[in-house]
Amino acid sequence: MPLKVSDIGEKRLIKRILKKSTKNIFNSSFFDELSIKSMKDDAALINFGDHYLVLTSDILFKSAHFPEEMIPEQMGKKAVTVNVSDLAAMGADPIGIIVSLGLPKNMLLDDFDRLIDGIIDGCFEYEMMLIGGDTNESNELTICGTCLGIVEKDNVLMKSGARDGDVVAITGLLGLAAAGFEVLFNNLELNSASKEVLLSHALHPKAKSKEGILLAKTGSVTSATDITDGLAKEIGELIESNSGKIGITLYEDLLPIPEEVLEVTEKIDKNPLDLILYYGEDFELLLTIDKDIFSQIKDKISLYKIGSVTSSGKMIMVCKDGTKKILEPKGYEHLS
Amino acid sequence: MPLKVSDIGEKRLIKRILKKSTKNIFNSSFFDELSIKSMKDDAALINFGDHYLVLTSDILFKSAHFPEEMIPEQMGKKAVTVNVSDLAAMGADPIGIIVSLGLPKNMLLDDFDRLIDGIIDGCFEYEMMLIGGDTNESNELTICGTCLGIVEKDNVLMKSGARDGDVVAITGLLGLAAAGFEVLFNNLELNSASKEVLLSHALHPKAKSKEGILLAKTGSVTSATDITDGLAKEIGELIESNSGKIGITLYEDLLPIPEEVLEVTEKIDKNPLDLILYYGEDFELLLTIDKDIFSQIKDKISLYKIGSVTSSGKMIMVCKDGTKKILEPKGYEHLS
Repeated sequence: MPLKVSDIGEKRLIKRILKKSTKNIFNSSFFDELSIKSMKDDAALINFGDHYLVLTSDILFKSAHFPEEMIPEQMGKKAVTVNVSDLAAMGADPIGIIVSLGLPKNMLLDDFDRLIDGIIDGCFEYEMMLIGGDTNESNELTICGTCLGIVEKDNVLMKSGARDGDVVAITGLLGLAAAGFEVLFNNLELNSASKEVLLSHALHPKAKSKEGILLAKTGSVTSATDITDGLAKEIGELIESNSGKIGITLYEDLLPIPEEVLEVTEKIDKNPLDLILYYGEDFELLLTIDKDIFSQIKDKISLYKIGSVTSSGKMIMVCKDGTKKILEPKGYEHLS
Repeated sequence: MPLKVSDIGEKRLIKRILKKSTKNIFNSSFFDELSIKSMKDDAALINFGDHYLVLTSDILFKSAHFPEEMIPEQMGKKAVTVNVSDLAAMGADPIGIIVSLGLPKNMLLDDFDRLIDGIIDGCFEYEMMLIGGDTNESNELTICGTCLGIVEKDNVLMKSGARDGDVVAITGLLGLAAAGFEVLFNNLELNSASKEVLLSHALHPKAKSKEGILLAKTGSVTSATDITDGLAKEIGELIESNSGKIGITLYEDLLPIPEEVLEVTEKIDKNPLDLILYYGEDFELLLTIDKDIFSQIKDKISLYKIGSVTSSGKMIMVCKDGTKKILEPKGYEHLS
């Protein structure tokens, strides 16, 4: 039987594209060594004097990305947020976004207006412009955002660069969005304060844009990525980007898992670590930071240390009982 | 009954977006007066020293944009070409494209590879890089390309700027792509040379990228756009962009309609002018050019004069029999 795209999954599809796309380099003044490397990163870097222009694109389909409970404003804002999160992971300041829409013919004009309001609200939040777009007819609502940002060359953050001994840190609590989706999918009853926190993270996520820019400027962040596809998968990416020359050890008792998440996993009888490590949808940044500077940075930006960079070549978790286990870099993968 | 998006059509939807998006201007060093104006143009201009960065996005869906006869390589290349054509209309040199894909789960891996080959082939043709992308699962094949280009500020071409007396010109023959689609849809028999020319324009169009860049550098092109949505509609855009202060008169006997197109319209009993004026899909540039410089430019770049800019505020066609008629700026409009 001939292979289908779902037989190999998103990651290997992207690798097939990269293999073809880097064969010929055109306009080489715009593409230096880091630009070529960035094609495997959260966003593409275009060489521009002292700066990199940073370009990233995400395409969202209603059936796959927007739960029934999501209102049009939230869909529009999420389409902006997923793009800004990729820029934040490179330390880039957002300039503007261009949005191409596929609209079902029978979509209510009022829902369209509300969707655009959500996009504009996202632009306002991240202090950038909606600079253009395209609308077409499609069977299901489709939002493709492409975001342009800028970062000083000296400050750019990449997935590669972590060094043995660096602190591994995260910009926020883990599992809130995943728990929020579980609340929706299982129709769970919770006290209203907890429910609000969880649903807000699931339906109305925020990118850590200011944090990414500030962290990049410290000059002490050695690598970074966002964890929207899951913490374990992204830690695997940091290891792979260093050609497996580093390892990362996580400490279970350092993982910042809020009470609301534990409340949900207890109700649905799941291990909270499954939500934390493999679910994705947390719009937080994962960072490796010079260990001598970490506490200084932590004074200025809210960060949680969750582990250390090692030379083991592996992702290891030190459990609460002191035992160690090797983690697999799995997570949310499209088309698999 | 509440209004649906299909009740108002693409053009008015875009106007609704613009009205909201230009309320707050962020990062104003990147957005000058022309940038704000460009949001109604073929591509967005971002202010960058002596240059504008030029950004455009197009989303294509299999059911709406790719006829059955189109092979994967042609779909990939077309997705690149539609974007480059928008850059060409601004006089911009393409730097790179980022492509987000929605792939049906059961798409053959071989077809995926061929689609990417088409995208890479397009990048090669227009001498730019495929700089990144995203893949997701979707019900129908979806290709969203976002293309980045650059143009010197002094050279940028806009839809506005035409002056009374300018020559109206086009970069190539008219109606070939439309006739090609009619050949496909009506399964017409033609001699193989004609058929090849027509199908090549329908299935394998080429953007006038080099021509757009050269024309911009002449400094004598007063306005420009591409005519992929139809000649009459785009002439209407040039008039509207000048707040209706200009008109455009076309001369039927100047319209460059090739023999192959007439052969097709005769077979299907259609007026060739319908294909030329309202069908779209010709990847040619429509230009207004200083009348004193036109013949000099024509010596270097293949151009056809099709009319003149007037002060009538209207689009008028002088027919072969000498009568005049007013044309409506209709054409292909999505979601209507």
